[in-house]
Amino acid sequence: MSESSIPYKIYLSEDELPKAWYNLRSDMKNKPAPLLNPGTLQPMTAAELEGVFCDQLVKQELDNDTPFFEIPTEIRDFYKMYRPAPLVRAYCLEKELDTPAKIYYKFEGNNTSGSHKLNSAIAQAYYAKQQGLKGVTTETGAGQWGTALSMACGYLGLDCKVYMVKCSYEQKPFRREVMRVYGASVTPSPSETTEVGRKILKEFPGTTGSLGCAISEAVEAATSTPGYRYVLGSVLNQVLLHQSVIGLEAKTALDKYGIKPDIVIGCAGGGSNLGGLIAPFMGEKLRGEADYRIVAVEPASCPSFTRGEYRYDFCDTGMVCPLAKMYTLGSSFIPSADHAGGLRFHGMSSTLSQLYADGYMEAISVKQTDVFAAAEQFARVEGILPAPESSHAILAAMNEAKRCKETGEEKTILFGLTGTGYFDMVAYEKFHDGVMVDNVPSDEDIAKSLARLPKV
Amino acid sequence: MSESSIPYKIYLSEDELPKAWYNLRSDMKNKPAPLLNPGTLQPMTAAELEGVFCDQLVKQELDNDTPFFEIPTEIRDFYKMYRPAPLVRAYCLEKELDTPAKIYYKFEGNNTSGSHKLNSAIAQAYYAKQQGLKGVTTETGAGQWGTALSMACGYLGLDCKVYMVKCSYEQKPFRREVMRVYGASVTPSPSETTEVGRKILKEFPGTTGSLGCAISEAVEAATSTPGYRYVLGSVLNQVLLHQSVIGLEAKTALDKYGIKPDIVIGCAGGGSNLGGLIAPFMGEKLRGEADYRIVAVEPASCPSFTRGEYRYDFCDTGMVCPLAKMYTLGSSFIPSADHAGGLRFHGMSSTLSQLYADGYMEAISVKQTDVFAAAEQFARVEGILPAPESSHAILAAMNEAKRCKETGEEKTILFGLTGTGYFDMVAYEKFHDGVMVDNVPSDEDIAKSLARLPKV
Repeated sequence: MSESSIPYKIYLSEDELPKAWYNLRSDMKNKPAPLLNPGTLQPMTAAELEGVFCDQLVKQELDNDTPFFEIPTEIRDFYKMYRPAPLVRAYCLEKELDTPAKIYYKFEGNNTSGSHKLNSAIAQAYYAKQQGLKGVTTETGAGQWGTALSMACGYLGLDCKVYMVKCSYEQKPFRREVMRVYGASVTPSPSETTEVGRKILKEFPGTTGSLGCAISEAVEAATSTPGYRYVLGSVLNQVLLHQSVIGLEAKTALDKYGIKPDIVIGCAGGGSNLGGLIAPFMGEKLRGEADYRIVAVEPASCPSFTRGEYRYDFCDTGMVCPLAKMYTLGSSFIPSADHAGGLRFHGMSSTLSQLYADGYMEAISVKQTDVFAAAEQFARVEGILPAPESSHAILAAMNEAKRCKETGEEKTILFGLTGTGYFDMVAYEKFHDGVMVDNVPSDEDIAKSLARLPKV
Repeated sequence: MSESSIPYKIYLSEDELPKAWYNLRSDMKNKPAPLLNPGTLQPMTAAELEGVFCDQLVKQELDNDTPFFEIPTEIRDFYKMYRPAPLVRAYCLEKELDTPAKIYYKFEGNNTSGSHKLNSAIAQAYYAKQQGLKGVTTETGAGQWGTALSMACGYLGLDCKVYMVKCSYEQKPFRREVMRVYGASVTPSPSETTEVGRKILKEFPGTTGSLGCAISEAVEAATSTPGYRYVLGSVLNQVLLHQSVIGLEAKTALDKYGIKPDIVIGCAGGGSNLGGLIAPFMGEKLRGEADYRIVAVEPASCPSFTRGEYRYDFCDTGMVCPLAKMYTLGSSFIPSADHAGGLRFHGMSSTLSQLYADGYMEAISVKQTDVFAAAEQFARVEGILPAPESSHAILAAMNEAKRCKETGEEKTILFGLTGTGYFDMVAYEKFHDGVMVDNVPSDEDIAKSLARLPKV
């Protein structure tokens, strides 16, 4: 296939939309460690998890062996409103960087939630509806997950209660209105509406919140309201399963043109995008069929892979959730309020953590001022105004492409462009005005937070 | 072609991107009336227009005969970053309305400017660059045109000065930041930076501005700065020419599936989207090859087609621009500040005005509270959060579809979904909070404004 025949955007047809999600765990020799009951420290049973999550989702969460889960027709129909998502050849960025590298990105921002989060939101809302529930609760950081879930619930006619991390609630006032358009209720977290919220507010008055706090509140709201379950936009195995649609589409599009990436790069907060994007590539790597460099990019202000410990920890600040084995900064770690947008979670998907521990992937951390500089350069040549989260991957991809210029290597780079930054203009404004700072936690900060962890 | 084989989204391939723009005027028996020099009241010559506009654009502006203008390769390459734009079958909306009608919309919102405006912005910026200019000036209302031009100029390395209607500048604070990302400077209009701005501020202190004011300022800034020209995002013949790419793509996609719309609906402010969307359909109608109902939808607060007069008027409030023959509310008309977003222009494209005068199209006006109700219903079922401007067309399409339900007719409706509403959340918030009002001008308001017009 000649170079010039590769279009700017590779769109698959609706027939080529994946018919099943791929369960990466099925190909892992070392399975991710199970969630533990915080009381008994025994693996959580399906029955225990079903108090919090929908039954079907619990099945998906616990199944480490089934390689594929069929995507229900109703979910595929919803996907068709915004998928297949384009795989873009970054011709303009390559020219700008004057690099021999070939850069591709999978763009997940062409939907109103502004990110890939919708892929799992519709799946989780669908199973809640199937189970006859009245509604779901959740947390949201940057607001993309909350918007995505609101859209899915609005579409299916489910009630949706969102706890939004307070600093994002304040930095992104219009996100709340988008969620209202879709019929959701939005509460800034920590709030006075839950026991755990009141406790956190008492302990840390004036806190700007964290995903960990908001999760605790949303879980409490779900488990204390009949007919409700809690849903989560990242970290969990089930979320990575749903997000595999990103990687499956990307791989199908690349295969069509005979392209094999050398490097696959994704930003990493809880791991939903990264786990989804890399799934089929990592699968080949695990099965010994192909090799890829796989790179996680995390913010220097919340560096769980690169500076955290691999151990059991709570997924939430309130310590009401099960324990997960993961790279973590400690569940009491709250990233600096200066850090823009998402990727604020103290831990990392158990699946990705195990793969990282086993040496199947790399991780780097980057500073947000560098991230915004890359975002702006990208926006001017590629047209798309990227989300701060996605821009972590952009920066890493640009750095790889620059290295190719130095070495003359014609590497093929694939990265995930998870979403758009239309609701992040406060952060862009700070960057333009030169008042954005890089607040990196000290070793003492991290050690202190880790010291509070339970011994398991 | 069976019904079920029509996908949710019809994407053309990059090869199917139109290679030429279609000049609707070439098929008009009654050509649009020429622009007049406000001093001599004689038709503006190319030499006169070249003081304000780029040379190539003047050629396109004055050419009523050439049917097609080739799209330069550089512009087609830029188009490929976000085009071809999808034609969407609104299956979910049809189900929601329980209508036998088949609804299609051409979605122009999948780019960072958030609308179709980018189609002409890149063309105008390209010709400015070709002419060796240093930069361009323009006005923007809702901010979409300014963003689009900023993107085009950022891409080509041209300087870009934007005068933004003050009420939009205040309602959409983040639009300014998006323009800054792309390197533009943004001034709220009316401003103290121009003579005409100072004059308007003196005459109407506390005015929230209008497109007409902002145009005057931008024209003055261009003509008083060497190496600059003025560019305009709507109204002009050249803009309709560039925007024909919308209709050409839509028609190609429909033809591929053997679909012939009965009704084509577009929102109308200055006419850029409407003129572009309807171009090839109107062409067939003018040539007697096919018939379509063509419907312009304008806001009740700025109803130039439905309540204006067809006569010569200035395009700007400052009366520094040429006179255009058009349906107009009078160049001193300033729509209520309560009216959300764009479609705030007092006049209408001369080309569309002539077609309307000759009975080739219909026009209706709608109230914004109805528009937002339709927007929200649409968002919940189709996923896309629409711009207020686009939602005028959504409302009209939904009303047509509801009529089909009553009569049982299986009409095919095509409408233009010009963009997304991510920067319009202040207006959505007002709607949710029940504080949005419908300010419709009185007959006296319009008569007073028209009475100020020059007699030509």
